[in-house]
Amino acid sequence: MARDVATLVAGAHEGRTRDIARLISMIEDGAPEVPAIMRDLAATSGHAQVIGITGSPGVGKSTTTAALISGLRARGERVGVLAVDPSSPFSGGALLGDRIRMQEHATDAGVFIRSMASRGHLGGLSATTPQALRVLDAAAFDTVLIETVGVGQSEVEVAAAADTTLVLLAPGMGDSIQAAKAGILEIGDVFVVNKADREGADSTVRELRNMIALGDHPDRGWQPRVVKTVASTGEGVDALISTIDEHRAWLAESGEGEQRRLRRARDEVEALAVAILHRRWEAGTDGGVLEKAAREVAAGRLDPHAAAEALVDGS
Amino acid sequence: MARDVATLVAGAHEGRTRDIARLISMIEDGAPEVPAIMRDLAATSGHAQVIGITGSPGVGKSTTTAALISGLRARGERVGVLAVDPSSPFSGGALLGDRIRMQEHATDAGVFIRSMASRGHLGGLSATTPQALRVLDAAAFDTVLIETVGVGQSEVEVAAAADTTLVLLAPGMGDSIQAAKAGILEIGDVFVVNKADREGADSTVRELRNMIALGDHPDRGWQPRVVKTVASTGEGVDALISTIDEHRAWLAESGEGEQRRLRRARDEVEALAVAILHRRWEAGTDGGVLEKAAREVAAGRLDPHAAAEALVDGS
Repeated sequence: MARDVATLVAGAHEGRTRDIARLISMIEDGAPEVPAIMRDLAATSGHAQVIGITGSPGVGKSTTTAALISGLRARGERVGVLAVDPSSPFSGGALLGDRIRMQEHATDAGVFIRSMASRGHLGGLSATTPQALRVLDAAAFDTVLIETVGVGQSEVEVAAAADTTLVLLAPGMGDSIQAAKAGILEIGDVFVVNKADREGADSTVRELRNMIALGDHPDRGWQPRVVKTVASTGEGVDALISTIDEHRAWLAESGEGEQRRLRRARDEVEALAVAILHRRWEAGTDGGVLEKAAREVAAGRLDPHAAAEALVDGS
Repeated sequence: MARDVATLVAGAHEGRTRDIARLISMIEDGAPEVPAIMRDLAATSGHAQVIGITGSPGVGKSTTTAALISGLRARGERVGVLAVDPSSPFSGGALLGDRIRMQEHATDAGVFIRSMASRGHLGGLSATTPQALRVLDAAAFDTVLIETVGVGQSEVEVAAAADTTLVLLAPGMGDSIQAAKAGILEIGDVFVVNKADREGADSTVRELRNMIALGDHPDRGWQPRVVKTVASTGEGVDALISTIDEHRAWLAESGEGEQRRLRRARDEVEALAVAILHRRWEAGTDGGVLEKAAREVAAGRLDPHAAAEALVDGS
């Protein structure tokens, strides 16, 4: 342990990549210094615009992320990226072509890219992503992109953590219909039909617009937009950034941005509380109180609800 | 409230569909009777074989589920189904063809089919699925099929709840490669290449077998199997059931079945404990203690870790 928390936090404030990376690693590992890190970061949060990027594998999330980085850099923003997508080249699962596209950003001091583990934590992303966001916020990134994958809990969690959520689709994958079923319509602020030079792009756009129009969007004040891009060539990316800006302006005017930040804080505090309890319940010899309770339940000597109440009241 | 818990539980023991359905609804709704239900069910658990069925949209999960029901019914088993897949016809998002295939089972007294909400609960599936499983267990179903979708937390949770996890793929969807990336290889006990009459089935099988052989499967005692099916015609379904039986025998001999049940009890107790705390933290005026803490954190007056600790120690 060469450097203490205060030094690392000061380094992050100055935008030093190594210190930022080190702090996020400590958070991911659940290091004993995490409470001190959070304390030192508390007063500096709330400035970065957080953009969630989600969609099925193959729709071009990483290429779109790379294109957004370029577009945001071009207007002078500093950009942080958290990749919680296991198929993302940012987090290691790259095809060669994707890796090459990333290279230009890897050496840019105004860009910080970090992959996050998407599994293994109680509560999934929710326990560590918001804390990693705080670090990037303290490091004064203007925009943070969170890239994640798929249909499921992690995606909903990312939407909860983001100011603006982009849902990516590609033509002809049958995605739009599946998306509706899976409830993706409810989480998207902007729908991006990527690979729009492919056949079927217009009908995917039409289908999405119909679903948005028909969908159950009780007066939420923001009608989700549909944008076409070809992220690999950069086509449509400027329009996408303008749409994100529009949404950002709406968040500020409507007060919804404030609401989202409050909800985010609530989720973060709750996820941390659950993580603290998880450690307590597993601490001690013989697997801890949780393991003992589980053995009684598995043997049919105790019902799970009574076991849970005992755990809560003993904790 | 026409009937009390003891009467409903007695009805479930006798396999009365309406009572089973009513108990599961009460669990899903978090009814005040849940602790009493769990108490009454405690001693009767642990007999049903639980089979998780997962895979991307379009691979034929529902058709496979229907084919498995038929196969298991043919040998006299009573079969329960929990559909937590938002795109499943069991849970409502059916195409007409799928619905027709379901009809034969809808009127069979030896089959109970139930859709479960996959969202909105803290902890996702984990809070209610194991409790619903207890109800089906008490109702003496021999096998319970849990159908879920996608890549993400909910899938991992289903694998944690199941004795045997089937991962479904279809040829030519690029699924096998994505599966490996997304960590699906780690959760599958049996890989089912469905729609095996389509081009590319054999290469998907080969690819899977290679990945399993190369994969990091540290002496876990069970080498995942790969089975080809055409669920829509029933082809390969008997072989799939035999493979499931093999896995079941291995679970019993190796002691792994006991380990999985213990782990399941642990997850269940913890999820219930978290749900109890969640309700306490949200109770009271003005959003409860959690909301108050979140407001302090959002304003930068309190760091999230300190807020979480206060929540835990005050609960």
